[in-house]
Amino acid sequence: MSKFYGIGVGVGNKYNLTKNAIEVLKKIDILFVPFGKKDNDKSVAYKIVESYLPDNLEIRRKHFPMSYDSEELKLAWENISNEIIREINNDKNVGFVTIGDPMVYSTYIYLFKLLKEKVDIETIPGITSFLDIASNCNFPLVEGDEPLVIVPATIGVEKVREYLIKENSIVIMKVYKNFNEIKELIIKENLIDYALVVSNSSKENQEIFYPITDANKDNVSYFTTILINKNYRYK
Amino acid sequence: MSKFYGIGVGVGNKYNLTKNAIEVLKKIDILFVPFGKKDNDKSVAYKIVESYLPDNLEIRRKHFPMSYDSEELKLAWENISNEIIREINNDKNVGFVTIGDPMVYSTYIYLFKLLKEKVDIETIPGITSFLDIASNCNFPLVEGDEPLVIVPATIGVEKVREYLIKENSIVIMKVYKNFNEIKELIIKENLIDYALVVSNSSKENQEIFYPITDANKDNVSYFTTILINKNYRYK
Repeated sequence: MSKFYGIGVGVGNKYNLTKNAIEVLKKIDILFVPFGKKDNDKSVAYKIVESYLPDNLEIRRKHFPMSYDSEELKLAWENISNEIIREINNDKNVGFVTIGDPMVYSTYIYLFKLLKEKVDIETIPGITSFLDIASNCNFPLVEGDEPLVIVPATIGVEKVREYLIKENSIVIMKVYKNFNEIKELIIKENLIDYALVVSNSSKENQEIFYPITDANKDNVSYFTTILINKNYRYK
Repeated sequence: MSKFYGIGVGVGNKYNLTKNAIEVLKKIDILFVPFGKKDNDKSVAYKIVESYLPDNLEIRRKHFPMSYDSEELKLAWENISNEIIREINNDKNVGFVTIGDPMVYSTYIYLFKLLKEKVDIETIPGITSFLDIASNCNFPLVEGDEPLVIVPATIGVEKVREYLIKENSIVIMKVYKNFNEIKELIIKENLIDYALVVSNSSKENQEIFYPITDANKDNVSYFTTILINKNYRYK
């Protein structure tokens, strides 16, 4: 039985791929890979898996939209999913690589929903950004009976503030766009000692900003995450 | 330079180990492994890594306390950490395996805090229970601008209720002890369609309960987690 494999590949370090992910990359027939709009613009996911791919694996480079909120974008996802369905019905095992973990804030979920009634699907978990950063920087994220809250900064600074006040362990994702406001918030709430800012975690150009006052919108990258643990002083 | 390696091994499936974890298990000199109080009571962590361990690796079986809230337990952790420090000062590379991820609700954090000023530490992330379950069961956990909240049920049913009402994506961990109360809560809040209960995720004896009404304290195991996504109906 041919299958669709959704493969989480972590955020940068190719040694953070699971054994399962590596084995699946060896046995599939076709790999769908996100690429930038320009032809040679390799995606992060592709760079992570590149060295594991066998020579005879067929690579299909696709531009995957980052969202799903217009008819045009929906159509783009539907076209890709129809192509995948055709190949699986043709007895091909098809893979798709996605950064971080497939079930946590991943555009893989769009594809999954379009495919799930139509083909067999196996999803392979990956190390998400906040797990990658926490271990990589030796930063204990949460202990005991504490909740752990993951908040995309895109919900707005006011809502991020509510979590910052109420919770002890908070991960702020997608922080690039309103980085400076989030930073001011952290300073105002006296959380400088407990906040770690990491850009490009476990990639070659990884940067750690501590204290957060060293970071600003101009020197952090698109892939930036803030970890806060009020019960742990980083240095 | 000798080092201490804290190695996350996931929750059950040995193929969910990262390449990094597997490589480190090959190069260390001594592995500290949690064991039950009875001599042959292999821990979950040990069973996951067993097949990767080279013949010449020295295994030190230890009973690790699950908490840190008495002088006696603190002393037990201190004794283990002192033993590890001695071996590292003796030029040995020492590893410690922990289920799930080392920086998220792991007793590894006790050990880490005792060691961090004294030896070089490298922490290797692992697939936590909620990532394991979400992919394993094809359950999209969180999308877009939604927060994701991880709540240990041990904070109390009232607090779990607050998160259940307010949030859309919630993971309830350590749910065994007050499983029946949490289940009643989920039923009362009309979340039956959106809640997935998994015992022993990715172990041989994994069980999925859907709807949650099929599960109760007598048929779920100690390793049980509930995933809820109000934006996703499981079946």
